[in-house]
Amino acid sequence: MTLETVSTSKAHGGTLGVYKHASTATGTGMTFSVFLPPQAESGAKLPVLLYLSGLTCTHANVTDKGEYRRICAELGLIFVAPDTSPRGEDVADDPAGAYDFGLGAGFYVNATEAPFAAHYHMWDYIACELPALLAEHFPIDSARMGITGHSMGGHGALTLGLSYPEMFKSLSAFAPIVAPGQVPWGHKALGGYLGADPAKWRAHDAVALIEDGKRPAGEILVDQGAADSFLVEQLRPELLDAACKSAGIDLTLRMQPGYDHSYNFISSFMQDHIRWHAARL
Amino acid sequence: MTLETVSTSKAHGGTLGVYKHASTATGTGMTFSVFLPPQAESGAKLPVLLYLSGLTCTHANVTDKGEYRRICAELGLIFVAPDTSPRGEDVADDPAGAYDFGLGAGFYVNATEAPFAAHYHMWDYIACELPALLAEHFPIDSARMGITGHSMGGHGALTLGLSYPEMFKSLSAFAPIVAPGQVPWGHKALGGYLGADPAKWRAHDAVALIEDGKRPAGEILVDQGAADSFLVEQLRPELLDAACKSAGIDLTLRMQPGYDHSYNFISSFMQDHIRWHAARL
Repeated sequence: MTLETVSTSKAHGGTLGVYKHASTATGTGMTFSVFLPPQAESGAKLPVLLYLSGLTCTHANVTDKGEYRRICAELGLIFVAPDTSPRGEDVADDPAGAYDFGLGAGFYVNATEAPFAAHYHMWDYIACELPALLAEHFPIDSARMGITGHSMGGHGALTLGLSYPEMFKSLSAFAPIVAPGQVPWGHKALGGYLGADPAKWRAHDAVALIEDGKRPAGEILVDQGAADSFLVEQLRPELLDAACKSAGIDLTLRMQPGYDHSYNFISSFMQDHIRWHAARL
Repeated sequence: MTLETVSTSKAHGGTLGVYKHASTATGTGMTFSVFLPPQAESGAKLPVLLYLSGLTCTHANVTDKGEYRRICAELGLIFVAPDTSPRGEDVADDPAGAYDFGLGAGFYVNATEAPFAAHYHMWDYIACELPALLAEHFPIDSARMGITGHSMGGHGALTLGLSYPEMFKSLSAFAPIVAPGQVPWGHKALGGYLGADPAKWRAHDAVALIEDGKRPAGEILVDQGAADSFLVEQLRPELLDAACKSAGIDLTLRMQPGYDHSYNFISSFMQDHIRWHAARL
């Protein structure tokens, strides 16, 4: 698979690169960033953490604001930030141009409904194509891959981590949408991409996946800002807490007083998450 | 002086705020960000570091990408990021809309030439109005104020630090324009704001200020990326090095192999600069 280098820049002793490729999963060009810590120069294969971004984001938001590079450089972790949806002139968008569906809002599913089924295959992109591409072009140890994400990306991390525990050995999330089947963002997105039958949504709902018997590779870490304006209506971490308790999954759910839903919250706790993954990979 | 709060958000245990006010120096609205570390909650007065941004930036660039908050929270330092020029419909811009003059490129001078003299008074804004405003609204210890900046903002930090050593007790810069009187960016900006007579530029040229007898409060730290594409033509740190050697000023000039002019460079060395200032304030 061919990879085009958009830019590289030295950062925190390592290299921050932005790359572009023609994706077979989405049928579009896809862009992502990779931070290679200085340990990559030795030629050794290193553990890798995928970070899935939230609504409206591209790869650039966490790359600019996530404050993950210093600690990745310290611990020798590769950090990869993909985009949140296919993009391009022929990619369908929300008819009203809403922020929570369509472009920038792929919800990490394989859409089955027209017109989204043509390109919205972010599930396959993250679970299959991207790891293979990374293994081909970067010094990653595919046996040591973790996944995290924010909000919609936290939903993606949880559902992918629960569905593929053999692939994602460590799992965490920042302010995730834990039960899209039970909240407005999820009703709109899963309904639009997968159709009106809620039974089809369960494979893309972390709480439902746990109820249906899926288990992560190990413990789960979730940080949630207590002053997050989406907490009560859209995020509902108490549903994940209850599901994990019932299933015997070791969830560390930290409610962080005063924190909102922004990168000010994410960057404040990024170091903790990087350490969490590095210790498990 | 009245201050309007644009936003506040908890970050790294402290508070990141964006504020707006009607500036008497520029005759326009001016926006800046302040990070208050958690130590501010005790009511104690804390040291403060002003960061002056480079060409094309607003307060937001370093606020988003500077990675200064964790270390400021650790050391109890307040960090303030002002804008780089006056802005507004009646503020003159470069006639051709160039990035290196006019809006986003105030060069930290008091313009004397029409039409820029009406609003481009960034020197007075940074040296007089902003410190007074900060002292009125935030728990800063005005006797412990440092200054730093990047590129055009490094030029501002050096010229202000050399001109007001009693006010700016610590001084550093990232990839500064050290001698605007000798480089194209400076010729254009100082010529446009101050007129064609180079004698009038010397008060806004760090190397000329040192030649003319100005001295900083203490040592100077400068980091410069060795792969910076502006190094040879616009930045020329060797001129500052020579001037400091002649004048007996203690300059630590670190050439950083492989680093460019971007925030990837700045954020990599921000922690070192914060520690440098905190140790001297």
